[in-house]
Amino acid sequence: MIIRNHIFICIIALLFAACTSPAEEKNTDTLFEQELARTQVRVDAIMEQGVNVPVPKDMAGGYTHEEHKRNWSTLCDAGALFTHTGDKRYATFIRDVLFEYAELYPTLPRHPTNRSYATGKLFWQCLNDANWLVYVSHAYDDIYDWLPEEERKQLNEQLFRPMADFLSVETPQFFNRIHNHSTWACAAVGMIGLVMDDDELVDRALNGLPPESLPDDLRDNDSGLIKDKYGRAGFLPQLDLSFSPDGYFAEGPYYLRYALSPFLFFGEALDEKRPGLNILEYRDGILGKAINALVLQADPTGDFFPINDSHKGMSLYSDEVVKSVDYGYYLYGNDPSLLTLAEKQGTVSLNAAGKAVSDAVAAGKAEPFRPTSVLFTDGADGKEGGVAVIRAYGAEEDHASVFLFKYAAQGMGHGHFDRLGYSFYNERGEVIQDYGSARWVNIDQKGGGRYLKENNTWAKQTVAHNALVVNQTSHFDGEISKAENFHPNLYAADISNPDFQLVSATENNAYPGREMHRSMWLLKDDAFQEPLLISVLRTSGSASASFDLPLWYKGQMLENNCDCEINNVMKPLGTNHGYQHLWAEANCKPKEGQLQFNWFHNGRFFTQTSVTDAEDEVLLVRLGANDPEMNLRRAPGLIHRRNGRANATFISVLETHGSYTPRNEIPHDPYGHITDLNLVVDSPEYTGLSFNHQDGTQWMILISNQNADPSVSHNLNINGRAYNWQGVHHLIKTNNNESK
Amino acid sequence: MIIRNHIFICIIALLFAACTSPAEEKNTDTLFEQELARTQVRVDAIMEQGVNVPVPKDMAGGYTHEEHKRNWSTLCDAGALFTHTGDKRYATFIRDVLFEYAELYPTLPRHPTNRSYATGKLFWQCLNDANWLVYVSHAYDDIYDWLPEEERKQLNEQLFRPMADFLSVETPQFFNRIHNHSTWACAAVGMIGLVMDDDELVDRALNGLPPESLPDDLRDNDSGLIKDKYGRAGFLPQLDLSFSPDGYFAEGPYYLRYALSPFLFFGEALDEKRPGLNILEYRDGILGKAINALVLQADPTGDFFPINDSHKGMSLYSDEVVKSVDYGYYLYGNDPSLLTLAEKQGTVSLNAAGKAVSDAVAAGKAEPFRPTSVLFTDGADGKEGGVAVIRAYGAEEDHASVFLFKYAAQGMGHGHFDRLGYSFYNERGEVIQDYGSARWVNIDQKGGGRYLKENNTWAKQTVAHNALVVNQTSHFDGEISKAENFHPNLYAADISNPDFQLVSATENNAYPGREMHRSMWLLKDDAFQEPLLISVLRTSGSASASFDLPLWYKGQMLENNCDCEINNVMKPLGTNHGYQHLWAEANCKPKEGQLQFNWFHNGRFFTQTSVTDAEDEVLLVRLGANDPEMNLRRAPGLIHRRNGRANATFISVLETHGSYTPRNEIPHDPYGHITDLNLVVDSPEYTGLSFNHQDGTQWMILISNQNADPSVSHNLNINGRAYNWQGVHHLIKTNNNESK
Ligand SMILES: [Ca+2]
Ligand SMILES: [Ca+2]
Ligand SMILES: [Ca+2]
Ligand SMILES: [Mg+2]
Ligand SMILES: [Mg+2]
Ligand SMILES: [Mg+2]
Ligand SMILES: [Mg+2]
Repeated sequence: MIIRNHIFICIIALLFAACTSPAEEKNTDTLFEQELARTQVRVDAIMEQGVNVPVPKDMAGGYTHEEHKRNWSTLCDAGALFTHTGDKRYATFIRDVLFEYAELYPTLPRHPTNRSYATGKLFWQCLNDANWLVYVSHAYDDIYDWLPEEERKQLNEQLFRPMADFLSVETPQFFNRIHNHSTWACAAVGMIGLVMDDDELVDRALNGLPPESLPDDLRDNDSGLIKDKYGRAGFLPQLDLSFSPDGYFAEGPYYLRYALSPFLFFGEALDEKRPGLNILEYRDGILGKAINALVLQADPTGDFFPINDSHKGMSLYSDEVVKSVDYGYYLYGNDPSLLTLAEKQGTVSLNAAGKAVSDAVAAGKAEPFRPTSVLFTDGADGKEGGVAVIRAYGAEEDHASVFLFKYAAQGMGHGHFDRLGYSFYNERGEVIQDYGSARWVNIDQKGGGRYLKENNTWAKQTVAHNALVVNQTSHFDGEISKAENFHPNLYAADISNPDFQLVSATENNAYPGREMHRSMWLLKDDAFQEPLLISVLRTSGSASASFDLPLWYKGQMLENNCDCEINNVMKPLGTNHGYQHLWAEANCKPKEGQLQFNWFHNGRFFTQTSVTDAEDEVLLVRLGANDPEMNLRRAPGLIHRRNGRANATFISVLETHGSYTPRNEIPHDPYGHITDLNLVVDSPEYTGLSFNHQDGTQWMILISNQNADPSVSHNLNINGRAYNWQGVHHLIKTNNNESK
Repeated sequence: MIIRNHIFICIIALLFAACTSPAEEKNTDTLFEQELARTQVRVDAIMEQGVNVPVPKDMAGGYTHEEHKRNWSTLCDAGALFTHTGDKRYATFIRDVLFEYAELYPTLPRHPTNRSYATGKLFWQCLNDANWLVYVSHAYDDIYDWLPEEERKQLNEQLFRPMADFLSVETPQFFNRIHNHSTWACAAVGMIGLVMDDDELVDRALNGLPPESLPDDLRDNDSGLIKDKYGRAGFLPQLDLSFSPDGYFAEGPYYLRYALSPFLFFGEALDEKRPGLNILEYRDGILGKAINALVLQADPTGDFFPINDSHKGMSLYSDEVVKSVDYGYYLYGNDPSLLTLAEKQGTVSLNAAGKAVSDAVAAGKAEPFRPTSVLFTDGADGKEGGVAVIRAYGAEEDHASVFLFKYAAQGMGHGHFDRLGYSFYNERGEVIQDYGSARWVNIDQKGGGRYLKENNTWAKQTVAHNALVVNQTSHFDGEISKAENFHPNLYAADISNPDFQLVSATENNAYPGREMHRSMWLLKDDAFQEPLLISVLRTSGSASASFDLPLWYKGQMLENNCDCEINNVMKPLGTNHGYQHLWAEANCKPKEGQLQFNWFHNGRFFTQTSVTDAEDEVLLVRLGANDPEMNLRRAPGLIHRRNGRANATFISVLETHGSYTPRNEIPHDPYGHITDLNLVVDSPEYTGLSFNHQDGTQWMILISNQNADPSVSHNLNINGRAYNWQGVHHLIKTNNNESK
């Protein structure tokens, strides 16, 4: 009935309900029109008030800093308004402000603060001068054709060319690095060069300063030598070296979101003004791949995976990501699923890319954003491990399960010691968490907003991750200088079948004389409401050791099948490598060779089943010891501990099941269904596990540990039964009514 | 521009955007139509499958129990479908099922389980038999006129009259109490009486069984004597005794939501069929007042205040509250703000009330739900203290601040020892929390879903509340038998000025020989972004004591101005009265006579400023000690401790300020603005406090402690300056440019 009378009801109802009822009226302006209107209100208010162009004096947060910073965005916005409304008031405003800068700039020495390796003129650091020039280049471009020839000449010669020279030839230690500071420098110099049609500047930006023009002993802010470091400089080498061939950024998506801006701004300008360079296709379309890598490294709620030193909560829907989505759509193939992200962002950029996105959204072209699994390589050459994002969708439309498996290189100064660690998410966010960073960005009360001491003592340590800790010591002793020499390796991956996806990787350097090999699956089967997350972690070494495998579950434990002794006096679990921050709330002994741990989080139930040895211990831990400033979240965790073995294999299966809300107080399916998890074979060559549904259905998963060749055939005898398969892994499902 | 072209743009845009784009199509059915459609799908599926009427055997959760339970709701739904669609399939279905019951019922003895003080026939307890009869009475009513006379007669005589007699004369210990069980009993007997036009049953339901007809030694499930307890029984006495004259329910809104159903069902039926009784106006419209009390006892997110043993998260938007909102609108004055609640509920009841609500919503009559402050009395006569809900709205449209101040009677078995305690909420939920109950309703893993041991040892204890604890001992020694003999008293309230609202109450029995008097204000002033919450708590006694005033803030502490010693070995803070569940994470000494405690929660910053004495201690505590099943949330708290005084006055001011989100990482206004909080006068007669904004503006609040008469004038000399005012309290604001 609803469908049949659709058109008629729709017209009548809309005319009555919507047109006659202003309270329910919907803004029918496009995203672009809405953003334009908001920008106009903001810029008009500032224009009415007038802007100041003060003599630079203050550090960040101080008056002159904040004023010049506001000016760059006001000018950029005013340029967009002039372009899209044609209102000359905006052009006149930009010109007038630029002439104020043109008057001031030639009088300026370097900023009086002298606190940076590359002190700026308008700001305390060149980085902010470059930010200014990137944004103001947009504005200048918007009025360039409108300006009389002699005014252009005056601005070019008094303001912009001097500024470009200052940021490059006069400050080579800022300009000639392979570092995001230099990306901003090159974008600034190159973009203003494109506006002024100054080929010398554009070339300088693309290819850097010739090494022979630099002093031999020039050093950057880490006191590294500028000249020797890479032997290359400029925008093009940065495109070559900043990303893996897949667009993966070694510090993770939180930093990629930040680093991507100058790449995209300059890239888009080059595409428009130097089409012959074909920058968008450079390195096989690396800019598009970086955008793609950014949008794919988010959980189903849109939050970026907290890889390395990430501040949690940064999201696909942050304002900063708007331009990446817009450029991604506009410049790289009009993927209609990006339009759904743009709709949720609720705004677009005020440029051709944003206009294209807005028009497409208005035309109803948006399609659901349901990314599939992806494997990213790490390292400029793609040969330093990587990360896998493995996704599956549940029976219900909006349900999604995703795990991030990390076998990447160290990630430089922001890297964590979390090799072969993972985190797990569903449509409501984190389920098995990575702690992220110990930092409250920009929150003065918390160490001035900088990384906190606990970032080193806790967040980077292995035990803060869902990764194997040996002898209560972090990977590489928690030393970056050791860790940066090695990376894990992808052993095998098979994401061709969305119902049975594998990723498997090895790390053989984190502990001397010890190998680690972890294989993880997402298994989707109608017998279970949601995909199962399965982990097999094997370690072998020459010396007997103690193994700790943490599970940083989020939520409230409901029950477990251990004998637990609660601690009525709590002491920190250790003195270093993160253990000094852990309380043991309870010490438990698992029963019957199998640990079952059942908890509730965000309306769903979870049950993890693990195989245990008779001597295993389970520690129920709580974060927060030795935390004098109360910087750490009081997260709960479980540590599965096995002592005194040279080799060990940990296997576990995580079920997501049921639901509960206090609004109706009706629990659905609160218990897990898995029984009889077993390690059916475990040799250097093969590992196999099996488990049952309580209805009797059995699954067995076999993996070849030493040969991942998809064409190789394997024959394995387990308990008198022969298994034959081809390729690295094999799934056998036996229904309860079949003979076993 | 948007406004000017509204109609035209609207028509064009809607025709194009909505009518041609099915993806964006909105369901234009009314709430009633949508609910009818959902119900039809549900009932049709069950009818197709067929229903069972098994011989009763099982406890709750078992097959026969769940089957009879599902039948009552299917029959009730089918009745509504027959009424609203006219489709006779539904009437036939109801009749056929009723005849199955008519065949079974006469054969039934009491339920074989024999586990209740009032064992039922269909179910293990009469309560569920009464539930069945209430819902099935609706269905029977819907088909009564459609049924042939002889079929009615047969059902009346074989099924319904016997069932009504069983639930009343045959089980008087169930029927004749003043208790929600008996409300269901009376509603069941009365409603089926109304359908059958059986005046005897209706009278029995309204007035109970004559006491002389009961055995003298009949006892209820608490082994209380039925006959002596109140001397009254039936629906009308229950209306007299179950609520305070304001509609307040002694166990709080969580239980009111549950208890209200039979009152409303029977009330609505009486209104329709015995209009002469004028039941809706009974006791000055007590049913409307109870509905009103229910909807007003929720925080701005719709969650009910967790008074006493409440399960947190029960909400105005729960399905169970739909009928209360519908009846409230339909029967009591068509308050258009209730329509906003109905819209958020997303559904309506399938009856005349729901239809009225749905039509009014469709007609665009909904108005914002922005309740103002309200004082509820407690006790059937309204003379046993009460609770105050004090609300103010912030500068931004959707901002709201609310505190609940509790000076009610004990609340029977579900009561907590939290006299003069409060909790505080904003538009995002809890800020200063009441723990609620220690219970996971219906979650089998957690003690079978029953109240947990920690409900007694923690949740009920005084230290679990934002209430004064003396000598680390709960009010009334934590004994209900003592507590139920006394109630606090409202001392004064002034909610006439929404910018300066006071509520003040006393409790003089919680500790022998000790008086407590707490006054709380919500002060709204343009100098602050949000209303300030101000507390003055005075206690005086004959003996020196130790005072603990907890602050159960939610969120992450950012900083405080104390010298703190962190505890690297943690022991429980005590051995009983809740202290056995607390860890002291840090022991702190406040500096400079003033404690400032700054935290972050849910995107906002908070700063509480308190006056401290030189000897005061501050304990930063964490819940969770002695919790073997991990039943308790690891909530953080602050305990302000003052030792060795007979008298003490605690004053504090709480600021809500600023905002922060990790999506843009820009903190706004992260620090509080209050300085120089002082107790300027504190005598048995008067207490006064003053504080400054850092801009120099000063506020002084004076209160008369012993005379709350609004007509009385007060003269007070403070530091050589005379203050004169009339009424219990007085606010003096001195701008920074005025002489002080
Ligand atoms: Ca639109
Ligand atoms: Ca966008
Ligand atoms: Ca409703
Ligand atoms: Mg432009
Ligand atoms: Mg990490
Ligand atoms: Mg009816
Ligand atoms: Mg309580």
